[in-house]
Amino acid sequence: MRKVAIVGIGQVPVREHWDSGLREMAVRAILDAMQDADVRNCDALYVGNMLAGYLSDQSNLGALLADYAGLQVSEAVSLEAACGSGAAAFRQAVLAVASGMVESAIAVGVEKLTEHSDVSPTNGLATAADADFEAAMGLSFVAINALLMRRYMHEYKCRKENFAGFVINAHDNARHNPHAMFRQAIHLEQYQHAKLIADPINLLDSSPIADGAAAVVIVPAEQAKQFAQPAVIVNACEVGVDTLSLSKRKDPLKLGAVTQSTQRAMQTAGINHTDIDLLEAHDAFSVMTTLALEAAGFAEYGQGTQLANPATIGINGKLPLSTFGGLKARGHPVGATGMYQIVEAVTQLRHQAPDAIQVSDAKRAMVQNIGGSASYVVTTILERDKA
Amino acid sequence: MRKVAIVGIGQVPVREHWDSGLREMAVRAILDAMQDADVRNCDALYVGNMLAGYLSDQSNLGALLADYAGLQVSEAVSLEAACGSGAAAFRQAVLAVASGMVESAIAVGVEKLTEHSDVSPTNGLATAADADFEAAMGLSFVAINALLMRRYMHEYKCRKENFAGFVINAHDNARHNPHAMFRQAIHLEQYQHAKLIADPINLLDSSPIADGAAAVVIVPAEQAKQFAQPAVIVNACEVGVDTLSLSKRKDPLKLGAVTQSTQRAMQTAGINHTDIDLLEAHDAFSVMTTLALEAAGFAEYGQGTQLANPATIGINGKLPLSTFGGLKARGHPVGATGMYQIVEAVTQLRHQAPDAIQVSDAKRAMVQNIGGSASYVVTTILERDKA
Repeated sequence: MRKVAIVGIGQVPVREHWDSGLREMAVRAILDAMQDADVRNCDALYVGNMLAGYLSDQSNLGALLADYAGLQVSEAVSLEAACGSGAAAFRQAVLAVASGMVESAIAVGVEKLTEHSDVSPTNGLATAADADFEAAMGLSFVAINALLMRRYMHEYKCRKENFAGFVINAHDNARHNPHAMFRQAIHLEQYQHAKLIADPINLLDSSPIADGAAAVVIVPAEQAKQFAQPAVIVNACEVGVDTLSLSKRKDPLKLGAVTQSTQRAMQTAGINHTDIDLLEAHDAFSVMTTLALEAAGFAEYGQGTQLANPATIGINGKLPLSTFGGLKARGHPVGATGMYQIVEAVTQLRHQAPDAIQVSDAKRAMVQNIGGSASYVVTTILERDKA
Repeated sequence: MRKVAIVGIGQVPVREHWDSGLREMAVRAILDAMQDADVRNCDALYVGNMLAGYLSDQSNLGALLADYAGLQVSEAVSLEAACGSGAAAFRQAVLAVASGMVESAIAVGVEKLTEHSDVSPTNGLATAADADFEAAMGLSFVAINALLMRRYMHEYKCRKENFAGFVINAHDNARHNPHAMFRQAIHLEQYQHAKLIADPINLLDSSPIADGAAAVVIVPAEQAKQFAQPAVIVNACEVGVDTLSLSKRKDPLKLGAVTQSTQRAMQTAGINHTDIDLLEAHDAFSVMTTLALEAAGFAEYGQGTQLANPATIGINGKLPLSTFGGLKARGHPVGATGMYQIVEAVTQLRHQAPDAIQVSDAKRAMVQNIGGSASYVVTTILERDKA
């Protein structure tokens, strides 16, 4: 299959958008991406969304958004893989162009979480867990991560403070991202005294739910030079799959799907860990950041939190992490999150990030979007076009 | 891209399955399809489903079903396009194998409509309409089709009885399909006296919602000879897209997405209408059957109901229609429907249908799955392998 490139990006700020519904946000992101690429149409539209049916009584988003964005398409469909929905849509858009099925495609992730009638986003998010064997017992997604965090602290004799560096780093970067939800720095004392949500998870361990939409335009790499923006090549986009239920895993602290997905992506791209200039990680909870870094091979099991310092994950560190604030501080509009990560990595590789968070001479980025308790994981390797 | 073939099929009866949940039905269909193909694993799983999140509090079906079916996969994701979700999943499975991304894929459609907590399937189905401009006004899906039927009868001076032949034909065929929900014949008098649901739609104009799951195994066509069952080649699988809202269309009686999808599919397959030996149509409502036949070019606009007689659409007619009972009598488990249609067409092309409904010497089938008010339409052309 041919290589593909990202030639346009668009996003709306991650906020509580009381003035915009699903379609308005998604269309803004799509049209911004098309304007950025300077194209008038694309052949196919792939939508990443988790909860439009549940919270907004709206399914069939592919056709809806193709209409509202004024697109003439030969495909317009929705993909869902819980919080991994954004990357799932991105992956199908990549495949559609790579295979030659179409000459251009848009992937958009969109989620509207703050406006709903008689259902709760917390219950909606719990649909990513096993409905019969986890959610039916009252286990919310925060509770699942609390179990993981407690287990981690017990198993590896890890102190709660060890996680703080991830959170501080994310907020530090988000200050410079105009699209981020939380743009204030936080300090260790604030983390230590933050309100408990589900012991041991506190408010600052958790990413905020929010509304948002982000989109990209994808074309064959050989055509990328015709576009105004510096092209970013998709060198790999690979999936790993695991059980929904934590209880079915041999060791819940080892995220098998993260390992599978990372190894496949690195093999496809022909690179290893040291080739990566920045990592947009799925930091929905600070324990998830830690587990994912370990399963992806950036740290030994039990030692993930040792990375949580500026020399390692800061913008000028060895492995800049969550460079636009990550899920933690940019915000986590679930089905849109995977697309925000891609848009941010592309911005870094174009060298168009705000100065304070631009990773110097960024050439290659890894993006990891996680659905459920790492039951569906997509790892993408993006590279600045050498040409 | 290379051609692909269907080498395994599986289905559960369409019923109110009080003893099985989503995952049990889907896994039965998947394992039946794998047994039929005599394979132990497949590389990718694509799930078609519309309402699992809404009615069963379960998202993330790709990873869930891959786990419960015991699959080792490099992709497992859900697709949604309202009642066209089944075909949407099928299409991605076809693309995954055709492109060379994987060597084998399973597409499964599954829907559980009869068991739910505090939400209604009718509201769920209305999420396929425009939530802000149709459903919010109280317009259900039956009501939308009632508006279409009334308009059709007015515009073309068509009598209600003219639609009866489609319904009688579907029930007549379903008698011989052990997986069908309604296996009794009906007569014109019953149709004429059936209870009104939404004037002018009566009970027998409407397909029943139900539980169900159906699946296929897809491999490259060049490998199809290694399998026990007669291979069926996918000659085309093409999409058409239109607005969700009827009010945004120039003429609501002309289903533009059906026309687009049919023309693209016939062009890709290099065939025309007379080359088709049977048609599995999306007969969710008798007016939808009529409109789709016209938009697909099998009848002039306003003359679709002239096809509704045994000499035309009966098993021995010119264009056998709904040969296993269609949505009307086999039943309409929405996200699974598109996969039932494929499974039934494959059974015909293998010449494995029950004698009474086997289309004689069936070589080529057209399958059309419609999402929403024909806002997302997939037309598939299947052909018995000549080898």
